[in-house]
Amino acid sequence: MNFSVTILGSGAALPTHSRNPTSQYILCNNRHILIDCGEGTQIQMRKFGVKFQHISYILISHLHGDHFFGLVGLLSTMHLLGRDKGITIYAPPELEQIVRLQLEIGGGKLGFGVTFITIEKNQTGVLFEDKIIQIETFPLKHKIQTNGFVIREKLKERTLLGDEFKAAGLSLTYIQKFKKGENVVDEKGKTHQFLDYTIDPPKSRAYAFCSDTAYSESIVPFIKEVDLLYHEATFTEKERDRAKATKHSTALDAAKIAVKADVKKLILGHLSARFANGEEHVKEASTIFTPVEVAEDGNEYQL
Amino acid sequence: MNFSVTILGSGAALPTHSRNPTSQYILCNNRHILIDCGEGTQIQMRKFGVKFQHISYILISHLHGDHFFGLVGLLSTMHLLGRDKGITIYAPPELEQIVRLQLEIGGGKLGFGVTFITIEKNQTGVLFEDKIIQIETFPLKHKIQTNGFVIREKLKERTLLGDEFKAAGLSLTYIQKFKKGENVVDEKGKTHQFLDYTIDPPKSRAYAFCSDTAYSESIVPFIKEVDLLYHEATFTEKERDRAKATKHSTALDAAKIAVKADVKKLILGHLSARFANGEEHVKEASTIFTPVEVAEDGNEYQL
Repeated sequence: MNFSVTILGSGAALPTHSRNPTSQYILCNNRHILIDCGEGTQIQMRKFGVKFQHISYILISHLHGDHFFGLVGLLSTMHLLGRDKGITIYAPPELEQIVRLQLEIGGGKLGFGVTFITIEKNQTGVLFEDKIIQIETFPLKHKIQTNGFVIREKLKERTLLGDEFKAAGLSLTYIQKFKKGENVVDEKGKTHQFLDYTIDPPKSRAYAFCSDTAYSESIVPFIKEVDLLYHEATFTEKERDRAKATKHSTALDAAKIAVKADVKKLILGHLSARFANGEEHVKEASTIFTPVEVAEDGNEYQL
Repeated sequence: MNFSVTILGSGAALPTHSRNPTSQYILCNNRHILIDCGEGTQIQMRKFGVKFQHISYILISHLHGDHFFGLVGLLSTMHLLGRDKGITIYAPPELEQIVRLQLEIGGGKLGFGVTFITIEKNQTGVLFEDKIIQIETFPLKHKIQTNGFVIREKLKERTLLGDEFKAAGLSLTYIQKFKKGENVVDEKGKTHQFLDYTIDPPKSRAYAFCSDTAYSESIVPFIKEVDLLYHEATFTEKERDRAKATKHSTALDAAKIAVKADVKKLILGHLSARFANGEEHVKEASTIFTPVEVAEDGNEYQL
């Protein structure tokens, strides 16, 4: 089943020719999620073929402009394109007022409902879940309230061994129990072990988004062993003082977190406009963690 | 002296690959003015080499998002680039609240002062003037309060004929009077005609911006005989009903206004995303007015 992350903006506060401000499109088991929405995100979506109307959930990490200035424009465009399907936005409390004020003053009403779900400061746990996926949040360490996110597939059912099950001639009603990992006692009193009729389910995958944040080991338990970690690396160790002053991370900080959380792969992003490319970042991070890459606008990562 | 208009966005509400939402950069006698600031304007400025920090005045025609959603991002970027020089924004009353709310919630203070000057509904006359230029406003006809703008060079002084003046051996104190078109009586009681010592000044040039608006002859007196008229032409006559319903103009509407106002040149803009190019618009408008062009992002027009 699909699970991918498309980078719509990999830059920091100052947009450059090659890096837009933060935004990502997550496709997870046919759920369409946008994380952050910096200015110009709708233009990036068009450029990289992300369909506006598919998006059902928007997560906003924090209210620095480079993470949400594109939101009201995106909602307006969705409206102009005829959207009638509602959308849910998970964000710090003040965002709703900002968005509604701008839409009201323009005098138009959106043709679809917008539901704001407030993420409180220091909130942890599940923001959203359905049968297949869940979205979790946890606090990052930045100048203002900032929330990280994990998008996780739920534990899947065990895979039935069809031939073995058929050969045993058991009632079809046992299938669901075996899939859930339960043993069954048949009408003759015989116990059937689920392990004889099923194998382990495909592994549930998880993606973690951590931007913006200073180095903070307190996030490790929330992102433990994810398949893909996006961690901001606005700077490298050469700008350690600047990172500290602005509550951002270096590439080495991000790699340390990747090591401690034992993730499978690390993507660095939110690069300061001062860097012409991500070479220094990769070099620095890979001294302690691989595989690591620097996100580029338009990159798509498969989990 | 310089007087040019650079198109930063020539599209309507839906941004396309080739047309950003409305914004224009006006360079007039070394005054740097931005008209409207749709989402992505700062990216367009970078693309077309317009220096952020030169801008001193921003005029916002109306509060539909495609004319101002890029403003708060632009101000943030000016700040991040170290701006300390104040900026003045002329706009409908509600804009100040929108901008200040977003900046406050982000927690940062701009390093420069932003002065908002309110343009009231149906306001006419001079918004700004200095020795060299003036900016005038007048109401357009749209769904919400919308203001047009004229940027005009002030009447210049007459040009002194140096040789004639020298030959007459007159006091240098007369120069300013002649330049202002006044005759002078010398100490012997003789009258000197300014026409003998000066020629007409270089013509004062003017640029008019009319977007968004339905066809409205009431704007004609305000834009009479300007050198360059930018008039919106969201549609062509084929979409006459749609133009009427949305209070926009067709290319023919814009051309009619150009004829009635007796302007020198017409630029059409704010093209609906449905048009792949401006060919139909030019064809339609040029049946009654030439020269006419369709604005393209990045075009620069010299007055």
